[in-house]
Amino acid sequence: MSATSYAVIGTGGVGGYYGGLLQRAGHVVDFLARSDADFIEKNGLRVESKFGDFHLPGVRAHRDAGALPPCDVVLVTLKTTQNQALAQLLPSILSTNRSKPPIIALLQNGLGIEATIAHLVPGCVIVGGLCFLCSNKVGPGHVRHLDYGLVTFAEHRANGAAAGVTDAVNRLAQDFEHAGVATRRAEDLVQARWQKLVWNVPFNGLSVALDAMTDELLRDEHARRLVKELMSEVVAGASAWGKTIDSTFVDRLIEDTERMRPYATSMKLDYDAHRPLEIEAIFAAPLRAASEKGRRLACMEMLTRQLQFLDSRNTRPSWQGR
Amino acid sequence: MSATSYAVIGTGGVGGYYGGLLQRAGHVVDFLARSDADFIEKNGLRVESKFGDFHLPGVRAHRDAGALPPCDVVLVTLKTTQNQALAQLLPSILSTNRSKPPIIALLQNGLGIEATIAHLVPGCVIVGGLCFLCSNKVGPGHVRHLDYGLVTFAEHRANGAAAGVTDAVNRLAQDFEHAGVATRRAEDLVQARWQKLVWNVPFNGLSVALDAMTDELLRDEHARRLVKELMSEVVAGASAWGKTIDSTFVDRLIEDTERMRPYATSMKLDYDAHRPLEIEAIFAAPLRAASEKGRRLACMEMLTRQLQFLDSRNTRPSWQGR
Repeated sequence: MSATSYAVIGTGGVGGYYGGLLQRAGHVVDFLARSDADFIEKNGLRVESKFGDFHLPGVRAHRDAGALPPCDVVLVTLKTTQNQALAQLLPSILSTNRSKPPIIALLQNGLGIEATIAHLVPGCVIVGGLCFLCSNKVGPGHVRHLDYGLVTFAEHRANGAAAGVTDAVNRLAQDFEHAGVATRRAEDLVQARWQKLVWNVPFNGLSVALDAMTDELLRDEHARRLVKELMSEVVAGASAWGKTIDSTFVDRLIEDTERMRPYATSMKLDYDAHRPLEIEAIFAAPLRAASEKGRRLACMEMLTRQLQFLDSRNTRPSWQGR
Repeated sequence: MSATSYAVIGTGGVGGYYGGLLQRAGHVVDFLARSDADFIEKNGLRVESKFGDFHLPGVRAHRDAGALPPCDVVLVTLKTTQNQALAQLLPSILSTNRSKPPIIALLQNGLGIEATIAHLVPGCVIVGGLCFLCSNKVGPGHVRHLDYGLVTFAEHRANGAAAGVTDAVNRLAQDFEHAGVATRRAEDLVQARWQKLVWNVPFNGLSVALDAMTDELLRDEHARRLVKELMSEVVAGASAWGKTIDSTFVDRLIEDTERMRPYATSMKLDYDAHRPLEIEAIFAAPLRAASEKGRRLACMEMLTRQLQFLDSRNTRPSWQGR
């Protein structure tokens, strides 16, 4: 098997980092960028990383999805708030890939995104990639990777059942490992997504609602109880779908977070930069999923409404008044 | 019956305003002040009011509760966050009132405060005064009354039952009316307190948690749903104690608030001034009361924890770092 070729949608903290590492490891990588495409074509991609800075002078960056050459894997690295763009992008990419449909790997947060995307790319294998990563775009073609980087891969099944560790998962995990990224291969994507929500829901949500860093939330007894309450609601939501998350997982997650350096969550960074928040994927979709099974997650519902209020005020054009 | 004499504990937005009006109407009023006592003795009390400014040059202000002369009514107008001081103040005031125990009127927010105070002043009639008032202290002996002013009076019963409209309630209501204050006389103090919480819980709480004015909370669909959800939880808490609040009351409350001018709640003003929040009286006590009857109020519990976190960070001495 020749080296996997990649199309990477997005050149931000996720796409620029992993895409850059894959290209550095010898893969053919084509990036789909928007306003930064010309800059990257000219100047390449610069990654400052805890694990070593590097610069790729020759980077293929495209503005038009139809201009991407055929590839083996499409890495979707947009924020889920931009996913409406995929309805145009993915069919356009597939139209140039008629001989062999690529694997679509969604390196995104939240729940239920694979099911939505599956309708856009019939015949494609879809893999979810759950990134545990602190990395931000700091300028055009310029990514600053601060810490972590683990990706958990698992393949999507239409009925939400465990797919096992599939060929596609193995291929992606091997490529990423070879590029220097720690990976895990999970058998059950839905289980993995709920597990990630156990962290994302309390910490992303409360970091915005309370304007706080992870360490503050765990140090204060009241906020810590909120964190735990929200975690147990996510566990209850997973359980309604037959996905068991045991209490040692939750306890370890809190301990791990306490050991982490004080951390502004991705949602907090989005909020502070007046970017739209990933409320739909991280909050609204899991709430709907739980509700479908008759579970009401009251605290999470309340936090979601708070975030919706804050997000709407925060992203309102300033001429409407803030 | 000669004119009622008053001792007013507190010279802030509530005590300065109502106490000033009572003195202007001809009552003998003695104020208990702290740091402002000397200033007020010397300069009197100045009230700027929507209903007409006035200045009282001769005001009796005391620093020491033991120095207050005997009186018919003690008006407690402290924030409930200062109620621990009453354990000293009230017995000291009573010791100079041995011939005829005064009525103790608590012009304060929240639930359950009368029961706590009853233990400090055995033999006294206790009346709750629920103030619907926008009034702030803007300097020593200087109060700015912005709007409203209605006080609902109702007498406390140890078992939480309705006392009916009692002599004490009539006396207070007459004095306040004569002084130009709109009043209501309620038969059931606990019912009246829960009804007031229907407004206070969502608007005080969310105004701090979401840094918002009343109009913003009602205009945004998500925040509005939160307001309604919290209101219905308060109604459920009341109902657990056999106090019925019907839905037309709740609807009217929302409509009335929409008609009000955009309004920063008292809790928001406290928060912005880094003063402690009345979480115990407005949130924690009602939650405990509901819990005693087996009702969990999940949204209110969550909001309470958020406020506890915010309050604790907000009132921390700055040398501890914010």
